[in-house]
Amino acid sequence: MKARVSVRLKPAILDPQGKAVLNSLQQLGYDEVTSVRIGKLIELELDSHDSGDMEQRLEELSRRLLTNPLMETFDIELEDDDRTGDH
Amino acid sequence: MKARVSVRLKPAILDPQGKAVLNSLQQLGYDEVTSVRIGKLIELELDSHDSGDMEQRLEELSRRLLTNPLMETFDIELEDDDRTGDH
Repeated sequence: MKARVSVRLKPAILDPQGKAVLNSLQQLGYDEVTSVRIGKLIELELDSHDSGDMEQRLEELSRRLLTNPLMETFDIELEDDDRTGDH
Repeated sequence: MKARVSVRLKPAILDPQGKAVLNSLQQLGYDEVTSVRIGKLIELELDSHDSGDMEQRLEELSRRLLTNPLMETFDIELEDDDRTGDH
């Protein structure tokens, strides 16, 4: 089983890295870009097939280790290996 | 319009940050986690409604500025503001 944890800065938190990328994009002529926010994409492989149980554990480990709950939010997507199409 | 660019290290590239997280998870008792890879989640807001044209420009700017094509792969998801449900 695979899990994908998307971690984003909370909207109120400044993102200097995103701002720098936005400035560079505008200098390169990509004026249609009005905002850039940079988060983390954490992909886990899991030796488990009980998705109900895993969802709870993933939420727990995301809060304990993968994210900073004061500054970040996250969401979790679970997928069975059988349904995985991309490599 | 919003765009989400998911950036992943190529499979052949070592990911020391992911490896460190994996070790920590296993020390905390999350033994079912067998692999962790950490990528970037870049979210852009775009002042454009021509998704066909934007897709090409997004691919171009991702290659030029957002990613390192030697070490990383990326995929792009476009979504209209109207269809956005999460906050």
